Amino acid sequence: MIDSARYPRLARIQSPDDLRRFEESELPAIADELRAYLIESVGKSGGHFGAGLGVIELTVALHYLYQTPVDQLVWDVGHQTYPHKILTGRRDGIHTVKQKDGVAPFPKREESEYDTFGVGHSSTSISAALGMAIARQAEGDDRKVVAVIGDGAMTAGMAYEALNHAGGMEQEPNLLVILNDNNMSISEAVGGLTKMLGRATGSRTLNALREGGKKILGDKKHNPTARFVKRWEEHWKGMFVPSTFFEEMGFHYTGPIDGHDVPALVATLKTLKSLKGLKLLHVMTTKGKGYERAEGDQIGYHAVGPFDPDKGLVSKGGAKKPTYTDVFSDWLCDAAAAEPKVMGITPAMREGSGLVRFSKEYPERYFDVAIAEQHAVTLAAGMATQGAKPVVAIYSTFLQRAYDQLVHDVAVQELDVLFAIDRAGVVGPDGATHAGNLDLSFLRCVPHMVVMAPSDEAECRQMLTTGLRYAGPAAVRYPRGSGTGVAAGTDLATLEIGKAELRLQGNRIALLAFGSTLTAAEQVGRELGLTVVNMRFIKPLDRALLLELAQRHEGFVTIEDNVVAGGAGSGVAELLNAENVLKPFLHLGLPDSFQHHASREDLLAEAGIDADGIRQAVLKRWPMLVKSGQTLSAAG
Amino acid sequence: MIDSARYPRLARIQSPDDLRRFEESELPAIADELRAYLIESVGKSGGHFGAGLGVIELTVALHYLYQTPVDQLVWDVGHQTYPHKILTGRRDGIHTVKQKDGVAPFPKREESEYDTFGVGHSSTSISAALGMAIARQAEGDDRKVVAVIGDGAMTAGMAYEALNHAGGMEQEPNLLVILNDNNMSISEAVGGLTKMLGRATGSRTLNALREGGKKILGDKKHNPTARFVKRWEEHWKGMFVPSTFFEEMGFHYTGPIDGHDVPALVATLKTLKSLKGLKLLHVMTTKGKGYERAEGDQIGYHAVGPFDPDKGLVSKGGAKKPTYTDVFSDWLCDAAAAEPKVMGITPAMREGSGLVRFSKEYPERYFDVAIAEQHAVTLAAGMATQGAKPVVAIYSTFLQRAYDQLVHDVAVQELDVLFAIDRAGVVGPDGATHAGNLDLSFLRCVPHMVVMAPSDEAECRQMLTTGLRYAGPAAVRYPRGSGTGVAAGTDLATLEIGKAELRLQGNRIALLAFGSTLTAAEQVGRELGLTVVNMRFIKPLDRALLLELAQRHEGFVTIEDNVVAGGAGSGVAELLNAENVLKPFLHLGLPDSFQHHASREDLLAEAGIDADGIRQAVLKRWPMLVKSGQTLSAAG
Repeated sequence: MIDSARYPRLARIQSPDDLRRFEESELPAIADELRAYLIESVGKSGGHFGAGLGVIELTVALHYLYQTPVDQLVWDVGHQTYPHKILTGRRDGIHTVKQKDGVAPFPKREESEYDTFGVGHSSTSISAALGMAIARQAEGDDRKVVAVIGDGAMTAGMAYEALNHAGGMEQEPNLLVILNDNNMSISEAVGGLTKMLGRATGSRTLNALREGGKKILGDKKHNPTARFVKRWEEHWKGMFVPSTFFEEMGFHYTGPIDGHDVPALVATLKTLKSLKGLKLLHVMTTKGKGYERAEGDQIGYHAVGPFDPDKGLVSKGGAKKPTYTDVFSDWLCDAAAAEPKVMGITPAMREGSGLVRFSKEYPERYFDVAIAEQHAVTLAAGMATQGAKPVVAIYSTFLQRAYDQLVHDVAVQELDVLFAIDRAGVVGPDGATHAGNLDLSFLRCVPHMVVMAPSDEAECRQMLTTGLRYAGPAAVRYPRGSGTGVAAGTDLATLEIGKAELRLQGNRIALLAFGSTLTAAEQVGRELGLTVVNMRFIKPLDRALLLELAQRHEGFVTIEDNVVAGGAGSGVAELLNAENVLKPFLHLGLPDSFQHHASREDLLAEAGIDADGIRQAVLKRWPMLVKSGQTLSAAG
Repeated sequence: MIDSARYPRLARIQSPDDLRRFEESELPAIADELRAYLIESVGKSGGHFGAGLGVIELTVALHYLYQTPVDQLVWDVGHQTYPHKILTGRRDGIHTVKQKDGVAPFPKREESEYDTFGVGHSSTSISAALGMAIARQAEGDDRKVVAVIGDGAMTAGMAYEALNHAGGMEQEPNLLVILNDNNMSISEAVGGLTKMLGRATGSRTLNALREGGKKILGDKKHNPTARFVKRWEEHWKGMFVPSTFFEEMGFHYTGPIDGHDVPALVATLKTLKSLKGLKLLHVMTTKGKGYERAEGDQIGYHAVGPFDPDKGLVSKGGAKKPTYTDVFSDWLCDAAAAEPKVMGITPAMREGSGLVRFSKEYPERYFDVAIAEQHAVTLAAGMATQGAKPVVAIYSTFLQRAYDQLVHDVAVQELDVLFAIDRAGVVGPDGATHAGNLDLSFLRCVPHMVVMAPSDEAECRQMLTTGLRYAGPAAVRYPRGSGTGVAAGTDLATLEIGKAELRLQGNRIALLAFGSTLTAAEQVGRELGLTVVNMRFIKPLDRALLLELAQRHEGFVTIEDNVVAGGAGSGVAELLNAENVLKPFLHLGLPDSFQHHASREDLLAEAGIDADGIRQAVLKRWPMLVKSGQTLSAAG
């Protein structure tokens, strides 16, 4: 329970209605309590940190002025919604964030009526909010809709598509878009828009004048001098501030204002709330605001594990097991050293995808294209037409954003692009929008693709080299975190394309394991005396080995950390059906449902693809194996 | 062969080298010949028409000034590349466009070294060209790269992502983007950007001044008066022309200039060619230019069948068999009449997707969002959160652009959005980029989706109603053209979800047909005395019927116009494997390769899913059926 001595006001806020009962003058104090509470609670639980601290004042002001949940707040990406969750009934549960059955780390419609739109991927908020506004207006309902979007998220094409559509509509919808400009998305924001937004803060004279004007002149509407300043400003601001961009798109632009100044926010939002039509409010905020260490290291404090706020993040002692991301990171630098044509591309995930070292060692071959997955892939395709060897480092879930580009710009043209797909399969605490449960299904159906999944770190490195050397489209998909802990090595060895590895020669049943499921499969295979194959390639499959195995076995078990529907195992069944070879199949993989947030281990167990799950499923299908197994002690 | 009396200059042009041997003064005459030749040849063959006519002069000027194919021209979408094809060695074959083994309707790398980047979907050109420019510059090679993109294509987020990335790069790449502004993409362009571009032509005073200035003052660089006008212009143009938008993105903006004025184009391009860095040239053109009927009906003449240029398009006499698009068109209006919450959304495909009637009858519920598939889907999701019933009308191939939005914004949240997916399966003459060969695979793996494919027009209507009434995400995918010709009806009847239809009770083998393959399957089933099922639902499958059929049959044949990999048939095999029911399967469907352009019938035959192909495949797998068949005459 919340300490009401430490948080006298926050302790009284169970919902925005409680917040709205306070005097406006108390809002800054409430914001301070909310910030302290957030620091304390994320310190205990870990989670997204900097983004939430940056929008404390904005969150308080919005829930104070708008009649949530009747009015609709749409938070882009959702990293920043812990303060929102605290104010909307989830205060006491916020320390359970990301845990199984705990509070979700992103807005989630099932969790609360205040979470109007589930997110996780960026740049959807304007589209969703526009849809809400249109639907409400069609019903003659004038409830307000507000989208809050970061400057990083604004770099994605989708946000632009939404602005463009909204601005071109004949019936102007009522919509407020708040551009939360912290000059920083997950990595540093890049691109022309950022440069342009940068100019806004650069033009001190104008801001000083404007801010001064505001204080001296008060409400612009009813003051002729203020109106003059406004006109003068309108005339010049195109030269200095990004208003032109948004106004050309058809939005009434206000700002930039200080997003940590509660009275300024409340005053401005009051005015905007009363205006009809399309409005854009530009607020300047600091990611990590109010926690000095986070302000100074915005990337490090984007998402954190539990830590002591008095001490800050401390690097854990002892050698950490390298993650697959680390393996990729080192491999890319080694490959770049060996091959001058290698280019590294990331859609704004330099840290997450392991491109920090590469970006420093090969800055001229490193391309952070902003949150722009579509562009990232076609950019790579363009490079490949000129003989370059582009590597697109991308999370499985974000590759969904560039599916058409992968199909048409890369695969149709058989261009030499390597996709290094991180966070594939079960991801865990970030929930359904970050899961990589579908990639084998949506990649396997694409002609010309070579698709690989490593069973350990060394194989990951070999597969990356194999994909790089292969003169066509290839993908290596690897999971979050570390694998078996085997050393990845330093050479640039390759694997034979389409060749699986027989790991354990056993009897009766063959376990065909894809990627990281191999470890569990091997354990079960050893216990039950079964054959175990490290399949390595999802496409092309090792036809010769599969036909040979079919002759010597009574059935197959396919195991993958991808949905069963259309997944790797399904491909094996297709192959044997095409060869008119009839064998019973047991397909193990992820369920036909979106998995909730929980630890990776929990989710693998839930799906039945850890060792226990595999053993149980195999024995259920083939009960006679209990007798034939060589080591049955672990099977009980 | 070309008539050298009628086309004295064009007859001498086999390649751009030939073009470059002409005097500059002859270029307008060459453009005139090229236009006449294009009209004549598309009149014979049919094909994309208006877009090509609009860029005749630009094509001539570009190939004249740039050293193609060393310099790289990237044409966005590619509708407009017939003139380019004619000048680059495909003059005599252009009348075979879209035919099997004929010239491809879009740029295609395999076809010509002048086709630098294959297209079909819009808005990829800037990304691809930027990739080319970066890769060339990394090699120290200063060949030029030019992207030509229409104003419609500029509405897609991807184009913005590319501008944004290019404009933000520290090392400014050398790239010329030509904005071909004809105020018209396939449908009328919509959106804020269009409004803004519209203003460019509206501001006559400035243009007159600018154009006048150019003529009087000559080369701006070396003329102080010209420099003054330029500065004056810079100062004011933000108020009138779209330069601000592009210049804020970091591009040096020139224009707008008349894209049909060859000398002006040549002069401007000469200057731009000599400049380093990012340049945007804004040219104003008229779609259909020089063929009056096409100028007057730009949508009608976007793509045409063969016609007599002297007479123009004439509507064919007699009642035409309604297409699936027509069925959707009527259904949507009927559904909207019955249900006030229905909204119709299209990403710039009003005509193609059959929304013309709806847009007229229900303008306030009709949303053309521009070429913005990502936004279209999330907009629908936003509407659905408010209880609206959005219908997203989209081609199968374009849905690939919104895959992530379908997964995360719609399916994860189980929102009530209906996808009406046209051009699913084999599409034909437009080639690989327009094929809808993958949708069953990439949709089937998505949890919560209901996926349907109709076998005829009446069923299409029932499925649309079923999807609309179903309170979650649903998709109906139907093919290009017409079906069996059965009347679609006018009621709003629904089907039971997940229920297949037993069409023919036969023996030994059951043919499980999905969607439009039913007709051929039924023919073969009748001939060979086999059971035939109209599966209707790809997801969920009719489990009860499948289990029952398994008891009475020796094997299953699944038939679908989708790739076999991960397709509908694969889903049936998964189901029986999960039930531990062992039956031989023959999966018939589209190949694991991209099909080239040809007629729909040719492609179905090539894939072996017409009646002949199905019969042969079934008899090859089960030769004994020749004896058991009831009507064998057709099987020979």
